[in-house]
Amino acid sequence: MNDQNAADFPTYLNEVADRVTVALDRLIPPAEGPEAQLMRAMRYASLATGKRLRPFFVIAFGELFGAPEKSLLRTAAALECIHTYSLIHDDLPCMDDDDLRRGQPTVHKRFDEATAVLAGDALLTLAFEILSHPDTHQDGSVRCKLIEKLSRASGAQGMVGGQMIDMLAGDVRQDLNSITRMQRLKTGALIAYAGEAACILGGASDQQRSAVTGFTHDLGLAYQIADDLLDVEGNEAELGKGVGKDADAGKANFVTLLGKDGARQRVEMLAEQAKEHLAIFRNRAHLLLQSVDFVLQRRH
Amino acid sequence: MNDQNAADFPTYLNEVADRVTVALDRLIPPAEGPEAQLMRAMRYASLATGKRLRPFFVIAFGELFGAPEKSLLRTAAALECIHTYSLIHDDLPCMDDDDLRRGQPTVHKRFDEATAVLAGDALLTLAFEILSHPDTHQDGSVRCKLIEKLSRASGAQGMVGGQMIDMLAGDVRQDLNSITRMQRLKTGALIAYAGEAACILGGASDQQRSAVTGFTHDLGLAYQIADDLLDVEGNEAELGKGVGKDADAGKANFVTLLGKDGARQRVEMLAEQAKEHLAIFRNRAHLLLQSVDFVLQRRH
Repeated sequence: MNDQNAADFPTYLNEVADRVTVALDRLIPPAEGPEAQLMRAMRYASLATGKRLRPFFVIAFGELFGAPEKSLLRTAAALECIHTYSLIHDDLPCMDDDDLRRGQPTVHKRFDEATAVLAGDALLTLAFEILSHPDTHQDGSVRCKLIEKLSRASGAQGMVGGQMIDMLAGDVRQDLNSITRMQRLKTGALIAYAGEAACILGGASDQQRSAVTGFTHDLGLAYQIADDLLDVEGNEAELGKGVGKDADAGKANFVTLLGKDGARQRVEMLAEQAKEHLAIFRNRAHLLLQSVDFVLQRRH
Repeated sequence: MNDQNAADFPTYLNEVADRVTVALDRLIPPAEGPEAQLMRAMRYASLATGKRLRPFFVIAFGELFGAPEKSLLRTAAALECIHTYSLIHDDLPCMDDDDLRRGQPTVHKRFDEATAVLAGDALLTLAFEILSHPDTHQDGSVRCKLIEKLSRASGAQGMVGGQMIDMLAGDVRQDLNSITRMQRLKTGALIAYAGEAACILGGASDQQRSAVTGFTHDLGLAYQIADDLLDVEGNEAELGKGVGKDADAGKANFVTLLGKDGARQRVEMLAEQAKEHLAIFRNRAHLLLQSVDFVLQRRH
């Protein structure tokens, strides 16, 4: 980690978050007509303050490879639509039944359940509309590649598959392998997509691509373990969302399987490993290096 | 209508339905691993007997324009994924709260609500994965055009927007214009997409395209009015789904606004108009001509 640049990262992350919010504001249809409540709900969920971590990885890696800014921003916005839809549906009473998200009432609390289902569906659909448009990239086969990868990362064999396993987790015995696979699907796949999309748009070499994949894989897992630590140690006021859910639901997680110390060590190990993958980019990757500590620090 | 071919249509429709079911069976991931319940629910909803009307229009118009069979079948399957996801979510307790669909328990009744939400999300996502794959068409910009049109037809400014209006309909005054717009979004947009996709894949001329658009517009509306008539006249045993919902929910529909006779006349008028659009295709469109009476007959 480069101490000279230690102050850069939060500034850069906020700047990226602001750009993504502006892009989403433009891309989500205006709240007009008798269906206006749908767009209001989409906006309420999408424009709320978030870290925009997945967009950050799209843009930071994409800039490293010299990918066009507009392509990166639209792809980052599409990815954030998918992430936001998954939070809306995950928070529903029949799923995790959460009342708070990003420091505000969840969509089904602020509006109602039907609106939450539909706003999620509409954001999911919007993600693919954004990517399919020629503004995202002049080459249709590049746009299709972005769509194919995003649909795989977020569908039955990616994020949604992981959510299904998580919903059923109370009923089956879980070991470290099964928890790791579940998290790789549920949260890892979208983080990995952020890197993949940047590689596609920036024409990354095979060597660069495998460095990016290694980084997002390790960081994604570290992020989840840190999240489980937070589930034990955190408190509601600090996070703006409910905590201690896994224990209540009788679900195993990294902390119940590894213990607190074991989980902390695993996070450290993965964080170091993630940084090592970036070595080939030298100090051009300093913001990405800083992101590792920043992302994990606030979570353990 | 060509009497010589009167027997052809049901056979052709069944044949198309079978081909689409086989395609969906191949395209939906196998039910494996701890997430198997997700795939089982996707299959349960998608492979159930249905008319496959939207796929029929993709394939019948596509064949008229000489579009490649494989492209048509994959596009038809993607469209059916969108239609099926919308039924699963629409049937949820927080939406229309239906227990029966296609003659069997709805997904949330057969499985549970969380599985229904996720199976819908996964089918929605799968539709775009199918279209983005090079097997759908060798030209990426054609695939992207299919994706862009489908996302618009099914998103906040299409089907999902129409569903939002329908959910809120109990609370606002509705006239014929607002009901017509709602239905154009909720059910018309996907039927229109079937025709649009065929035009894209078959390289239809502007004149052909506008005939197709006119046809799907009129037929889509006729279909909905016929459905409203069924809501009043039908019975549960015959249809395998609950009826009389609109009246119970205090919602206006075409029958409450036009009366039974007025609604029947409107259906007839739209059916004739739909057929007139097909005149430019002469008797090459005989199956499409027959589809009009077939589709509307069983519904009024």
